[in-house]
Amino acid sequence: MNPTITAFEKSPDRGQGLARDMRVRWALEEVGQPYEVRLLSFAEMKQSAHLAIHPFGQIPTYEQDGLALFETGAIVFHIAEQGAGLLPKDARARARAVSWMFAALNTIELPVLELTYAKFQEGDQPWFEQRQRMVKDRVRVRLAQLSRWLGKSEWLDGEFSAGDLLMVTVLMRLKSTGLVEEFANLASYVARGQARAAYKPAFAAQRAVFKAAG
Amino acid sequence: MNPTITAFEKSPDRGQGLARDMRVRWALEEVGQPYEVRLLSFAEMKQSAHLAIHPFGQIPTYEQDGLALFETGAIVFHIAEQGAGLLPKDARARARAVSWMFAALNTIELPVLELTYAKFQEGDQPWFEQRQRMVKDRVRVRLAQLSRWLGKSEWLDGEFSAGDLLMVTVLMRLKSTGLVEEFANLASYVARGQARAAYKPAFAAQRAVFKAAG
Repeated sequence: MNPTITAFEKSPDRGQGLARDMRVRWALEEVGQPYEVRLLSFAEMKQSAHLAIHPFGQIPTYEQDGLALFETGAIVFHIAEQGAGLLPKDARARARAVSWMFAALNTIELPVLELTYAKFQEGDQPWFEQRQRMVKDRVRVRLAQLSRWLGKSEWLDGEFSAGDLLMVTVLMRLKSTGLVEEFANLASYVARGQARAAYKPAFAAQRAVFKAAG
Repeated sequence: MNPTITAFEKSPDRGQGLARDMRVRWALEEVGQPYEVRLLSFAEMKQSAHLAIHPFGQIPTYEQDGLALFETGAIVFHIAEQGAGLLPKDARARARAVSWMFAALNTIELPVLELTYAKFQEGDQPWFEQRQRMVKDRVRVRLAQLSRWLGKSEWLDGEFSAGDLLMVTVLMRLKSTGLVEEFANLASYVARGQARAAYKPAFAAQRAVFKAAG
């Protein structure tokens, strides 16, 4: 049976592909795996039926034949293991791709998400503007290191992998800040990810949900 | 040949087991894999020789027979795949353990590390105390969810796994805040992790490095 993922009934990102179901949708499209979607309201995400499969009451989840997974990184990894095209077959190259998956979700996403959190939770505080500039500098340090590593390469380590998929979607969260554009090779890298054939149907599908919600 | 990991020549945590090499040392002890350690100064971590294996100039790294990995989560996962005792053999249970690895390093560590970052980078700002209380509340939300999930169980999902190893070490970072102690089952959970036979030699080894550095 096809896997079922969960997504926001009405995404706070207004269909821009920043909600984390985008990452899972893209991974499923990369490996050519059809899927079903169950939409959840914010209230439903905090109810016990959902908390039984996602302890932190978030989206996305992944369910198939009695297996229930949470955490985008783990779901993308599972999809990558089931299908082909997201993890190299060579054991060493595969282990390095996993390094990039964790780098995207820990080293890079940590300061990136802090920008977003601050906006929502501290946007009305007197320190907000000054502190946001400090957090942006933290992000810049990581982007400069990432840019240096990427250099003129197309992807982070050889062929496109789940590490690139996660990194591109993490960098997409910076869209409104203009920070990625300070590093020309990173801007091209994100554009390259978004130009992949599998990206487009994933983006269209999550956007259609937002539009239908009106 | 035994793998070689990198660690701080003089750890800023003063041998309390909070530096990330602790996580890798513990994983290696769990699977019974002897290892070598290469100590790095802060200057060496930013030099090109180290940046060639760790794009973000951090520790730990993991090198063995030409393979070089970075990111603690990826290293622990690699160790867990090579040895026995850190990932269940059953495919579904294994996928769920991977969910907990990512949960520890993304969902939980994100607000936990923000507490530490703020202390180092914003400790002298006028907003520090007020904002720190807000971040502590963000951590509490996650700890309450984690506590609810754990309930009376010994570990997060069946047998002890790499997910527990990472979660325990992430929670250890909260030691000075007293936040874990607000949730009795989480405090017991951390103590249970630290009581494991493999934890002790890992802790002693990282502490010995700090003591030797004087």
